[in-house]
Amino acid sequence: MTASASGLPFDDIRNLVRQMPGPDEEALAEVRARDAQLTKPAGSLGRLETLAEWVAGWSGRGRPQITRPMVAIFAANHGVTAKGVSAYPSEVTRQMVENFAAGGAAINQICIAHDLGLKVFDLALDMPTPDITEEDAFDEPNCAATMAFGMEALAGGADLLCIGEMGIGNTTVAAAVLAALYGGDAADWVGPGTGVDDEGLARKTEAVRAAVARIAGTQDPLEVLRRVGGREIAAMAGAVLAARLQRIPVIVDGFVATAAVAVLHKMDPAALDHCLFSHVSAEPGHRGALAAMGQEALFDFGMRLGEGTGAALAAGIVKAAVKVHDGMATFATAGVSEKSD
Amino acid sequence: MTASASGLPFDDIRNLVRQMPGPDEEALAEVRARDAQLTKPAGSLGRLETLAEWVAGWSGRGRPQITRPMVAIFAANHGVTAKGVSAYPSEVTRQMVENFAAGGAAINQICIAHDLGLKVFDLALDMPTPDITEEDAFDEPNCAATMAFGMEALAGGADLLCIGEMGIGNTTVAAAVLAALYGGDAADWVGPGTGVDDEGLARKTEAVRAAVARIAGTQDPLEVLRRVGGREIAAMAGAVLAARLQRIPVIVDGFVATAAVAVLHKMDPAALDHCLFSHVSAEPGHRGALAAMGQEALFDFGMRLGEGTGAALAAGIVKAAVKVHDGMATFATAGVSEKSD
Repeated sequence: MTASASGLPFDDIRNLVRQMPGPDEEALAEVRARDAQLTKPAGSLGRLETLAEWVAGWSGRGRPQITRPMVAIFAANHGVTAKGVSAYPSEVTRQMVENFAAGGAAINQICIAHDLGLKVFDLALDMPTPDITEEDAFDEPNCAATMAFGMEALAGGADLLCIGEMGIGNTTVAAAVLAALYGGDAADWVGPGTGVDDEGLARKTEAVRAAVARIAGTQDPLEVLRRVGGREIAAMAGAVLAARLQRIPVIVDGFVATAAVAVLHKMDPAALDHCLFSHVSAEPGHRGALAAMGQEALFDFGMRLGEGTGAALAAGIVKAAVKVHDGMATFATAGVSEKSD
Repeated sequence: MTASASGLPFDDIRNLVRQMPGPDEEALAEVRARDAQLTKPAGSLGRLETLAEWVAGWSGRGRPQITRPMVAIFAANHGVTAKGVSAYPSEVTRQMVENFAAGGAAINQICIAHDLGLKVFDLALDMPTPDITEEDAFDEPNCAATMAFGMEALAGGADLLCIGEMGIGNTTVAAAVLAALYGGDAADWVGPGTGVDDEGLARKTEAVRAAVARIAGTQDPLEVLRRVGGREIAAMAGAVLAARLQRIPVIVDGFVATAAVAVLHKMDPAALDHCLFSHVSAEPGHRGALAAMGQEALFDFGMRLGEGTGAALAAGIVKAAVKVHDGMATFATAGVSEKSD
């Protein structure tokens, strides 16, 4: 896919959404058959069993393995920070990208703890997208090109993808995307983000309200993304779509990542069937976003950092679930008596 | 501690409970001071931050480390299985102990996934404790000796202890302990365990009712343990008490492990302050047991296997939390701008 201005790039993306495969039914049958033979009462591992099934169904491997898990962080800057919506200055985005490279961020440590690869994609940090209260974030070719960039993130190969982000101001942009997709008042989607004070929160709410009002009547989810989104949000949507086409299960991080995939969900409610929602963010709008998509998260640890930290923690659990399925003995091989009915 | 029949062994245990240290306030101050300098908004890692604090406070290390995490599984058999309370025959306890030794059980895989040590303690499997509907499980010296055996489990050293169990019939015994400690009807505490059918569930409920009725009026928690408990339950209570005295944080597994530590909680509500409750078990009585102790579990994955599987999964999260605290850069060293108030 290229982002040639002469094509119809959003139509290319709509075509890809139409081509999304469903789960691999043979792999699902295989994983379930083996699970029934493992030395434990049926169903006694609860969510660990369904996680192994989920990996099997979406990877197409009936005996699932995770050997190349990857966290992808997309970083971008946002013109709307001019409206005083964040507790931190925009230069922190680049400083944190450097911190990722130096290994000093929270996500680096979780990747070490759970043996996950980490890639950081810096999306033109010196050229913030325009202030969405006043202008569209992208034109169509640029928005589609940014989605295509996200798709390329998988180029090196991965068998489990965790998506995360970094971008001062991006909870404001995410709130605008969610408000435009799902309606409700701006205040329903806005929260403290990195920790803005009450006055900042009022400015943030006003900014979301203004951005959504500016594009009133816009129904097409890709148009919502183009008009009030941002680069990391477009790239994450692209990466998640590409993962589906390449049979790679995806773990979604918190509020901003959820806003990104909501664009795909609005295009097709089945578009996120290969996605696991890792955690309920402490950012208050996240709960409503999950509810709007009918999704339940794996855990709620009151986290709101981003960087893919929640997704990476969930990857540790998914890896354990797959290891359990793969490594356990069967009743027959272990000589354990089966249930006496 | 020895279990000499000539002493007053329960008084020895009561004395140990009175000697329990509180959290290390200096270590807590140190971990909080460093957390405030890490390159993230204050509070944005939620439960990960409080887990690092918890390890610091109970290990006494202001810069916490986990280098020797251990899962201890206590296995025992129960005479009450004669009442037809389980879906599996008693010989499965030994078969599963052999499965642990061979590396074929779920807990083995989780220990590999999260790099945890595993020790299995086989508690006289060929001599089940008497049927608690008819007789006391122990005399006092034997009950105290079994608790002391649990204490010895820590002898080799560990800096994080996960407690788990294996024992056909032990959800019946655990339900009897909880009903005797907290009241309510037997049916409030009884569930399917490994997957008993409706008739078996009725027998199980009746067995718990009979055991509790037999010891009506018994208030002393150690006497409850002695009369309707079991060996793995006594040993787990001992291990958790010893861990407190040795400044080792403990992660509690599911329903049966919770019944064991409830004995300590009833002796002193502060006795479990060094314990993390890993998960809400699918065994229905677990929710009530947690509520009775005012505890909230880390996650709810619908698991009900035992073996320490929930605790071991939680250990992976705790290890990540400690790694995050230890490995992250500070604002000053990373050159990241702090919040602009």
